[in-house]
Amino acid sequence: MNEIKVFSPASVANLSCGYDILGACLDGIGDEITVRKTKNKEIKINKVSGQKLSKNVRKNVAGVSAVAFLNDIKVDCGFEIEIKKGIKPGSGIGSSAASAAGSVFAINELLGKPLSNKDLIKYAAEGEKAACGSAIYDNVAAVLLGGFTLVREKNDIIKLNSPIGLAFTILHPQIEVKTSDSRALIKKVVSLETMVKQSANLGAFVSGLYTEDYELIGRSMKDIVIEPLRSILIPDFEKLKKICYSNGALGFGISGSGPSVFALSNGIIQAKKISQSLEKKYKKLNIPFDIHCSYVNNLGVRIIDLK
Amino acid sequence: MNEIKVFSPASVANLSCGYDILGACLDGIGDEITVRKTKNKEIKINKVSGQKLSKNVRKNVAGVSAVAFLNDIKVDCGFEIEIKKGIKPGSGIGSSAASAAGSVFAINELLGKPLSNKDLIKYAAEGEKAACGSAIYDNVAAVLLGGFTLVREKNDIIKLNSPIGLAFTILHPQIEVKTSDSRALIKKVVSLETMVKQSANLGAFVSGLYTEDYELIGRSMKDIVIEPLRSILIPDFEKLKKICYSNGALGFGISGSGPSVFALSNGIIQAKKISQSLEKKYKKLNIPFDIHCSYVNNLGVRIIDLK
Repeated sequence: MNEIKVFSPASVANLSCGYDILGACLDGIGDEITVRKTKNKEIKINKVSGQKLSKNVRKNVAGVSAVAFLNDIKVDCGFEIEIKKGIKPGSGIGSSAASAAGSVFAINELLGKPLSNKDLIKYAAEGEKAACGSAIYDNVAAVLLGGFTLVREKNDIIKLNSPIGLAFTILHPQIEVKTSDSRALIKKVVSLETMVKQSANLGAFVSGLYTEDYELIGRSMKDIVIEPLRSILIPDFEKLKKICYSNGALGFGISGSGPSVFALSNGIIQAKKISQSLEKKYKKLNIPFDIHCSYVNNLGVRIIDLK
Repeated sequence: MNEIKVFSPASVANLSCGYDILGACLDGIGDEITVRKTKNKEIKINKVSGQKLSKNVRKNVAGVSAVAFLNDIKVDCGFEIEIKKGIKPGSGIGSSAASAAGSVFAINELLGKPLSNKDLIKYAAEGEKAACGSAIYDNVAAVLLGGFTLVREKNDIIKLNSPIGLAFTILHPQIEVKTSDSRALIKKVVSLETMVKQSANLGAFVSGLYTEDYELIGRSMKDIVIEPLRSILIPDFEKLKKICYSNGALGFGISGSGPSVFALSNGIIQAKKISQSLEKKYKKLNIPFDIHCSYVNNLGVRIIDLK
């Protein structure tokens, strides 16, 4: 086996109650990454399509994660990487995570799986570091493990139970939110009372995933820490929330650091219904947008072609 | 059925990672509460033994919770309550919670169970309010639901999974810790970074309970918010922690607001071994102490006699 093509999906981080902790893996939207073994002991990015991104392995996250991985294991070959971006950078649904996780996953598979997907997370996080300045684990964990994931510590990542049928609607308003703006909005301290409320919701959410209690999952997806500060960057955030809840969403919130928002539903039909209502609303705003519906992807990044 | 005797157990709140959120129910140590139906439509506390506590129904937590309960439901009888305290007030293992929960549980049973145990929590919390100034739910929830409990909100309390065989060792150093001192030590704000670390542990702990992953349960029982501030009130806290971990404890921390400390073990044999080591250590300190070992009590408060 000398060539592999993988589908590396988008993901939703934070999930309202788990800032920097929770992640969920999406399906249907993601990057396609092709990796070929070469005799020349070098990592090269041959082609990037779909988005304008660097082919420099030190600048492209897929290259950065691959280099980090291959620095740690001995191989007597090199790799050529082709990236077909299906996720727009800066959308808040894990564009860099998909590329960073996809390349290390593909290389690991080509090498006969010397490491587990869990072991690959730290290399993918190196790609995230190149993209946003710090090694963020929530998106790459979700991509590499699938389903719902929890980052306890960077070296201790837990795959949670993923109830069958949960589905996301993702609305990506194509506005530019500068990461610096989004970060500047976050306060560095919270009250103890707020911490207790927010973390009680996180604990309840995790319990809801295991007991497959959709109502509990829904009412636990609250964010009283980050959302009140960041939501002002998203046009009509409160109205979108209202639309989603009135259409039966279990939860609604900002995906990662935005500007995408997500609704979580019990079933894809519900997710589609929400998508139609959001679409109707957003068309009136004169802001370009993308919208996607997706089951929670319990498999994560996967092989779609082998040669 | 006109008379009932219940065993209302001690409990451990917070469990390191879940300040004001988590609780666990103990066994073997608790209050015995006897309640008799009377024709006279009045609530009376006839007798309190074991500890010097008021028999005034407005001052004794068992009376306060009973009054709150009976204000909400129509009954054509009264109740006489006898309390045999098995838990020392101020020990940090839910003395007031046991009495407050026990009386409403017993009355509810005598009335043919018009309410569920979950519905009784709010009345028991009224007793807590009388004892410490605010309606605290974590201990009463654990007593009334058994096992491990999570307070998402005061009206939304979740019984978590309770893996078989988990056992507590409780060391109660008989020092007086003034509630005002214990409260004054707590800072009203935490950094966002601390919040993320602490709540990631809470989420991981909940996951560990469901997957019965003892190692994960153990490494998630960390408290970087309250323990560093409050532990200074407990003589030799760090040494006790070291003894527990070196004897195989999964977790160690302050029980509720102290001064009791707990160790969590996989099995009662381990718990007993830890108890012996703690005893050896504490005997040298010249501080009187109590020590108990107990499985996690998945049943909670229960009937022990009927007439």
